[in-house]
This record gives sequence, C-alpha cells and structure tokens, in this order.
Amino acid sequence: MDHLPEVIQELITKSNEAKNNAFCPYSNFRVGAALLTDDGTIIQGCNVENASYTLGICAERCAIFKAVSEGYRHFKAMAISTDVEKLYSTPCGACRQIMYEFGSDMDVYMTRPDLTYIKKTPRDILCYPFGPEELRMLKSGEVPKVDGDLNDNKMVDGTGDAKAHKKHKGDTAIPAQ
Amino acid sequence: MDHLPEVIQELITKSNEAKNNAFCPYSNFRVGAALLTDDGTIIQGCNVENASYTLGICAERCAIFKAVSEGYRHFKAMAISTDVEKLYSTPCGACRQIMYEFGSDMDVYMTRPDLTYIKKTPRDILCYPFGPEELRMLKSGEVPKVDGDLNDNKMVDGTGDAKAHKKHKGDTAIPAQ
Amino acid sequence: MDHLPEVIQELITKSNEAKNNAFCPYSNFRVGAALLTDDGTIIQGCNVENASYTLGICAERCAIFKAVSEGYRHFKAMAISTDVEKLYSTPCGACRQIMYEFGSDMDVYMTRPDLTYIKKTPRDILCYPFGPEELRMLKSGEVPKVDGDLNDNKMVDGTGDAKAHKKHKGDTAIPAQ
Amino acid sequence: MDHLPEVIQELITKSNEAKNNAFCPYSNFRVGAALLTDDGTIIQGCNVENASYTLGICAERCAIFKAVSEGYRHFKAMAISTDVEKLYSTPCGACRQIMYEFGSDMDVYMTRPDLTYIKKTPRDILCYPFGPEELRMLKSGEVPKVDGDLNDNKMVDGTGDAKAHKKHKGDTAIPAQ
Repeated sequence: MDHLPEVIQELITKSNEAKNNAFCPYSNFRVGAALLTDDGTIIQGCNVENASYTLGICAERCAIFKAVSEGYRHFKAMAISTDVEKLYSTPCGACRQIMYEFGSDMDVYMTRPDLTYIKKTPRDILCYPFGPEELRMLKSGEVPKVDGDLNDNKMVDGTGDAKAHKKHKGDTAIPAQ
Repeated sequence: MDHLPEVIQELITKSNEAKNNAFCPYSNFRVGAALLTDDGTIIQGCNVENASYTLGICAERCAIFKAVSEGYRHFKAMAISTDVEKLYSTPCGACRQIMYEFGSDMDVYMTRPDLTYIKKTPRDILCYPFGPEELRMLKSGEVPKVDGDLNDNKMVDGTGDAKAHKKHKGDTAIPAQ
Repeated sequence: MDHLPEVIQELITKSNEAKNNAFCPYSNFRVGAALLTDDGTIIQGCNVENASYTLGICAERCAIFKAVSEGYRHFKAMAISTDVEKLYSTPCGACRQIMYEFGSDMDVYMTRPDLTYIKKTPRDILCYPFGPEELRMLKSGEVPKVDGDLNDNKMVDGTGDAKAHKKHKGDTAIPAQ
Repeated sequence: MDHLPEVIQELITKSNEAKNNAFCPYSNFRVGAALLTDDGTIIQGCNVENASYTLGICAERCAIFKAVSEGYRHFKAMAISTDVEKLYSTPCGACRQIMYEFGSDMDVYMTRPDLTYIKKTPRDILCYPFGPEELRMLKSGEVPKVDGDLNDNKMVDGTGDAKAHKKHKGDTAIPAQ
C-alpha cells in the first residue's frame, strides 16, 4: 500500500478501531473516526447516542471536540469508517461544519470496510460555506478577501445554470412588493 | 423583475420579513427564511437563540420543522436572508442536512439585502450526502440505485485530483496493519 | 372535566392531534406538543427526525421555535403527548432548556394517552437552571436578585445532604493544589 | 480541605484547568469540566464553539463523549467550572440529559472559582427524567420498576400542589372533544 503515506494508512486503520467504542444502542450503527493533528498525533472518536436522539454526537464531531479539548486547533487529515460494505462513509452536514471550523483544507478520507476510500476536503463537501471567516466578515461588514466563492460568478457557474448566471451578472434587483 | 416567477419574488421578500421575528439576543445577528411547499404555501422561519448557545435553531431549520409540523413533506424552494450587504446568506451544515431530508432538489435562494442571490440545490451544497436514501441503503446493504455519487468515479473526479482518481479507480486496498 | 379550564383541555387534546404530523421514520415514536401563548393562541409541534439522528427536533422545541417565529415570546402552558399508555410524557433536557428561556413558570402538562397528566413548571424540572437570567448575571458579574436558588443554602438543602449543607454554609474553600 | 476526598479535590482542580483549552471566540465564556470514571481516571472537557452557534458543544458533554470514546460507560463524579465569581456552574438541559444517560446517580460538583460548590446528581437536576430506562419502557410498554417517579403521586406531590395532587389521584380523565 505504498500509494498512501504510512501515517494515513494508520489513520484509516485507527478510524476502524474506533468503532469498537461506539455507543449506539438506538441505531445499532457503529461509526468510527480518526483525526491527524498538526503534530502527528492521532485522536479517535466514535458515535455516542442518547435516549433523546437529537442529543447524541457523531464520530467525526466526537474526535474533533476531543482534540480541541486537548489543545489542538489545526488538523491535517481525518478518516471515517462504518461497517457498511457498499458505501463510503460520508459525514452529515453538522460534522462538515465542525470540520470546516478547524481545518477547511484537511484531507477527509471517507472509507469503506475494504479500506478503499474517497478523499475530499471540508471545503469540497461544504461548498459556499458559512464558517468562521464568513462570520467575521458578516460582523465586520468586510468583503471576502481570499476565497472568491462567496461573491463572484463562479458560485452561479457552479450550477452550470447559464440563465441564472446571466441574471446574477446583471445583479438585477428584485423590488420589495 | 420578470426574470423570476412572482412566487419566488414573494418567497425572497418573505424571507426578509421573517427576520423581524428573529430571537437573537446573544449574537444580534438576524436571519430569516421562507419555504415554498408543494401546494404553493409559503412558511417563514427565523433564528431562535438560547442562553445555552448550542440549543438554538437556525432560520432554515425553523422553517422546515414548522412546515413538517403542519403536515408538509415536500418543498419546492427556500429563500434565506440576513442583514449583511456583502455576503450571500449560505446555510450552515446542519441546515443543509435538514433541507436534504425533505427536498434534495429544491431551489435554495441564498440572498443579499439588495435581493441579488445565488441559487443552488441541497444536493449541490451537500455533495456526497449522507441522507435518508443513504441510511436506507446502509441498513439494507443495497447498492445505490439512481444517484451515482456515492460509488462511482465522479466522486473522485469531483476534486479534479487525477492522482486520487487513478488510485480510486484501481480500488487499491489498504491492508490492516 | 370541569377540574381543568376549557383552554387547557383543548391544549391537551391538540397536543395529541399534533402527533399525526410527527416525522419519525427512524424511531417510530410519535410525540406531539401544544403551546398556549399569552394571547390564547394554541400552537402545535411534533418530533421531526433526520437520517443523522442528532439533527432532528423534539415536539416541544418544534412548537416553541414555531411560536417564536410567529412573534410570540411568552407562554402560559404546554401539553406533551405520546402513544405510550404507561408513562407520562416528560421532556428531554434540551426541551426543558428551551422552555425555560421563554416561560420558566408556565404550566407543563406531561400527559398519558388516557389524558391523565402531571403538571410542572420548567423551573420545577430544570432546577438550579442555567438560563437567560443566569447568563446575564454571568456576563455582568451581578449577584442573583429574585431567585435564591443559585446562591443560597436551599440548593444544598435540596439534596437533604446535611454534611454538604454544613460545609456549604461555611463556604469552606477548597485550596488549589 | 480534608472534608472532600483527595480525588474530588483533584477533580475540581482539573475542571478549572480544563478551561485553558476552551475554544469560545464567539461567547468569550470559558467552561471546564472533569469527569471521574469508575476506574479512577479523570477526563477533562471544555466548551468548543462554532461559527454556527448551535453546533458547538458544552464542556460537560465534551468530557462525557470523550470518555465514552475511550471505552468508559459509567462515571462516579463530574466537576464543572467557569470564571464567574458569583454563580455556581450549573449545566444546561442538554448536558443534564447526557449525564443522565451514563451516570444518573454520579456526584456533580457545580463549582465557583473560589472552589466552593453545590453537589447534586443528574437525577436531582433532571427530575422526572426521560432517559434510557424510560425509553426502554416506552418501547416495551412496561411499567416502571425501581423508580416510582414516573407513575406515582410523588410526581405531583413534588410540586406541593395539593390541588393538582387530588386531581391526579382521582385520575380524572379529560374526554377528547
């Protein structure tokens, strides 16, 4: 498996091991995650469910909250695993938001039990994000600097919807009724 | 304003009106949303914050939960508004997940106060989703039917990362240590 | 049924009706809630689940967020219903927190399908609360005014733990190591 | 401070240390928690906020999710700390619910910076709970065994509301309209 760095192979292996601690008596669906910090430490997380379903936590957020509580703020990569042969382990929207806060460009390995995977960044899977930078701009009233995503035509091009694009370019305003 | 159907113009206008009911004493950041149901009804939502920040709700989820509690299950479009001139109102990851559950292909208008907007679908902004169909497949062990996103190469093509693509195509397995 | 005001009888009936709109494909457990606003309006809520369990909402929070988005800020009473014969419908901790924000002294009717009930206030079931008043005091550094709960001995009496009580009364400080 | 076991003194000290890792750029309000597992290990947690306020986590839940991901399922005690001189650090409703799932009878030390505290159990501060046992009963249709709270008159006595009590005792049914 020389196509992946050893540390990433270990990350994926540890995300599978992490499933062993999953607390999922309500869904019986185990999820594991492993997070690679900027100093090379690997931190594992799993899903932790609650009798009031909405108060549980996913494996990805568990790993990140855990790492932050240990003082880490920047991450290089995350691996996610389930027991399902047929699908890659893609994170829910809430987990994408938490990943984005701490590592919009980290490599996220969404794996299958056979250890094949899809690799994306939080920025890829939370396109047109609302994150810390956006919130800062919202509060300061600034225009975005680096990332054009939030105010250029690429956003509309993104849909390949030429008509919407043309309209957007013209910035035609819709009058309040 | 004939470039948008009247109902969409009304939807955007009502998402702005919805901000008036926002309960945001902690962030002082008003958000409004308006949801178009399949029978043409428009339902408004706003952010509702809590002293325990994590227990509040965003405007988009507020509108959807409200509509579902009125018996609606399918939606055609949603508009989102804030008071910020410079940025389009993009939803957080949790709101994308809730939108996806009830209308993965609805038109989401992320607007600015000048009523210009970006139009996307939940599927566009929650790419490689984990949603009801995926959960059903996970539990049944089926392969995805319609949407190829979750098991063909487009997922890797998505990043335009040829190297990752090649590796993925080959489905090279990483052996457990 | 003259032992309860008609409006409360209607509230309890409507909390049972509200179950009909519950979206609970994951738990198959229907919950309904009905909220009485200070102008006598009754607003219904139900649980709305999500494929990512943690992102759903309970019936009680659904009803409150809905009411707030309609401009209501103060509530007189809430009724909660499930389909379970044997137990009263008690709210989860998150719902208690949301109730507390908008009506710490409203009457909460935790009912059974036979329409018998337990009546409590959010203050009763979220004792020693962390709420808006507490947060305001935290930020201002004030001492609590009205409610003694947060800094008098009743807190310790509450446990009937005489030893803890004595210690607390003396405010014996524990030295940092 | 020989009035408390050394391990509890250490627990309270570590809950204060845990604040140092708090990620709270949005509220600027640091919270720390320390959890004592049944094998004597102490696990620290802090609040971790997010640009989308509702997706952050409190210190208490952070510590518990972290411990569960390390394989712990039962806890003896938790200490909670903030920087506020005047108030005891009481948990929000969501945290009470998560505590209840894993240790309804553990000692929860709600402290002040001067290290004085209030001691309660999750059962004390989430009275008339909806927890795992209740959910099991709901699904099985059983009557509660051990804890009478959920179906005897003590629930109504709890408020000392004699009138409600009398009504409840009679189990007078409210007819559907």
